[in-house]
Amino acid sequence: MTPVPPRGFPRAEFERRTDRAQRAMRRAGLDALLVTAPQQVRYFTGFDTQFWESPTRPWYVVLPASGEPVAVIPEIGAPGMRATWVTDVRTWPAPNPADDGVSLLAGTLRELAGAGGTVGAELGRELQLRMPAGQLPEIAERAAVTIADGTPVIRRCRHVKSELEIDKIRFACRVASDAYAGVPELIRAGDTERTVVQRLRADLVNRGADTSPYLIGVAGQGGYDNIIMGPTDRPLGPGDVLIIDTGTVFDGYFCDFNRNWAIGTADDAVRRAYDAVWRATEVGIEAARPGARVCDVWRAMADVLAGAGSGGNNVGRLGHGLGLQLTEPPSNHPEDRTVLAEGTVLTIEPGMEFAPGRMMVHEEDIVIRDGGAELLTTRAAPHLPVVA
Amino acid sequence: MTPVPPRGFPRAEFERRTDRAQRAMRRAGLDALLVTAPQQVRYFTGFDTQFWESPTRPWYVVLPASGEPVAVIPEIGAPGMRATWVTDVRTWPAPNPADDGVSLLAGTLRELAGAGGTVGAELGRELQLRMPAGQLPEIAERAAVTIADGTPVIRRCRHVKSELEIDKIRFACRVASDAYAGVPELIRAGDTERTVVQRLRADLVNRGADTSPYLIGVAGQGGYDNIIMGPTDRPLGPGDVLIIDTGTVFDGYFCDFNRNWAIGTADDAVRRAYDAVWRATEVGIEAARPGARVCDVWRAMADVLAGAGSGGNNVGRLGHGLGLQLTEPPSNHPEDRTVLAEGTVLTIEPGMEFAPGRMMVHEEDIVIRDGGAELLTTRAAPHLPVVA
Repeated sequence: MTPVPPRGFPRAEFERRTDRAQRAMRRAGLDALLVTAPQQVRYFTGFDTQFWESPTRPWYVVLPASGEPVAVIPEIGAPGMRATWVTDVRTWPAPNPADDGVSLLAGTLRELAGAGGTVGAELGRELQLRMPAGQLPEIAERAAVTIADGTPVIRRCRHVKSELEIDKIRFACRVASDAYAGVPELIRAGDTERTVVQRLRADLVNRGADTSPYLIGVAGQGGYDNIIMGPTDRPLGPGDVLIIDTGTVFDGYFCDFNRNWAIGTADDAVRRAYDAVWRATEVGIEAARPGARVCDVWRAMADVLAGAGSGGNNVGRLGHGLGLQLTEPPSNHPEDRTVLAEGTVLTIEPGMEFAPGRMMVHEEDIVIRDGGAELLTTRAAPHLPVVA
Repeated sequence: MTPVPPRGFPRAEFERRTDRAQRAMRRAGLDALLVTAPQQVRYFTGFDTQFWESPTRPWYVVLPASGEPVAVIPEIGAPGMRATWVTDVRTWPAPNPADDGVSLLAGTLRELAGAGGTVGAELGRELQLRMPAGQLPEIAERAAVTIADGTPVIRRCRHVKSELEIDKIRFACRVASDAYAGVPELIRAGDTERTVVQRLRADLVNRGADTSPYLIGVAGQGGYDNIIMGPTDRPLGPGDVLIIDTGTVFDGYFCDFNRNWAIGTADDAVRRAYDAVWRATEVGIEAARPGARVCDVWRAMADVLAGAGSGGNNVGRLGHGLGLQLTEPPSNHPEDRTVLAEGTVLTIEPGMEFAPGRMMVHEEDIVIRDGGAELLTTRAAPHLPVVA
């Protein structure tokens, strides 16, 4: 039994994150870093709210070249932000259509980056600017700063996880592993994709998960044609293959892995595809070592799939980073030369189209360790489970 | 018992949305509208996936000045998008760090808006661009188009809901109303904010909700100091006031309303605050009629709160629009002069700080009707419920 990790992080964790960012900022020539998205705000401050669901108000955190982060946020967030390690919390009464933080942020950027300074922002791939994008030029002009791409700094910070972060991911993986083990008992005659998935959703909560922002279920005769739609009201029937994939969260940290079941019976093509993808997963886990490039992990897995007659797949990669988001850089992709380091958390996610419109995808979560990967998930069964 | 509405929408609904957008685009001088965020993509196409949780790949939908929308999306989305009413689905193998849809989107914009054309994008307040913001200038240049703010067009489209949309919101409201009614039976000795909220989360699923992306619980002695943090592991005790607020979803459509309970006992100040905010809600519901401005609704409620000795509150408004998002325009705010129309869905959300650090906030969901507002939620009890 994995113990429930403590929530939040000690101050030292945020100091290390700040220091890591500021060193990367110096190398990148940034005088400040501006972040707006939930994951970045949480990473640097520890601030955690579900209120991100409301798109009305922008929230800003500015990391200066030295010193602690400064929060520039709507008044509604003040009690929560003041409970974090951040001491410089600047608020405005929001929403204010005439000036929703624009003046306050511009003044803060000018103060912290200096007139003529350069400010990094979330402008690059796999990031989104959570603010009215049309206001960024005005803010830059009023602050007298240049906006540059802060993506490399953010990516550098979040790539390697601390042990405290890994503990949370491991716990999310454990909760979902235990829940997946019980899925055969959850499936009843007459069930649809949706009824099974919703029963599992409640079960995940009861086992200690916070939420499951990603919980799909897709079934198809002899295989599914995609892994991102569903669940639908399609009834499960004999010969279906059901895949369930979940991004379930504990204290902000995701697991992301799937499991496959055959309903009643399975043909040989499905069984062979399952075995091949299971073997590709083994090979991927084995290849994921400190110093390896993620494209090398991809290559090792792709060779197994090709040998099993893979017709490719529409997912576009064979796994990815994992942490505060369901998917993070790097990508297990032939063009991604990111070097794996101890503490990198990855999904190993081989998939193949083994017949037209019939896919088989597996997934496990690992953390890169000196002696080889640590498996965070309970490894999938080596042969396709058939639910009676 | 509210029947479970059908999922999705008939093709005619999407044709009406397209037509409404294109008329607004003509008035705004836009040759095309580019949307990237889940709610806009879903609004115009019906495409529904939880895969938005993965920030890796951008997704684009382009609405031309006439004709049907065109999807420009990663290959992984093709099976799902082809199942919608959209027939022109253009895909690229993603992720592709070297060109993640940039060429394909630029070519599509050039074709649909014409060289020298103007393309509206999600640049304004309460919207976010879900793509690498730094790539927008390059895309515009390669497409030979000018990017303008598409916010007024999007806001115009989404402001008034169809009866089919209202049916889904009403169902979400009904599920949450029924679940709230059972909360006193869910609370057990020794419970924390988190244990109560997580039990309610499972209950909402069991009652037919899809998910509860927003489900907070905050308790405080004699009142809470905020309504957006929590739940935490703070144990509930006698004299606490507990507020639970949920944005629970059915088929993409949110409810958003809260309820308050006293634990064991409540002092007079809390009881008076509850009664005052309940009366302000009545006044707000009464004031919300077709042709009224939302600032008038605000004023009617603010007068009641001021008369009850309100010290203001940090929420910054007294309600807002509701639909595909937890909060949508307009704001019940003194500066918002939006005119209410039949089919506008609003939350009526008066709140006040009745003593330092002690807040009381109520919330109900309504739809504007010719003869007066239709209440979508089961009205809160007129006096503060006390849980034994």
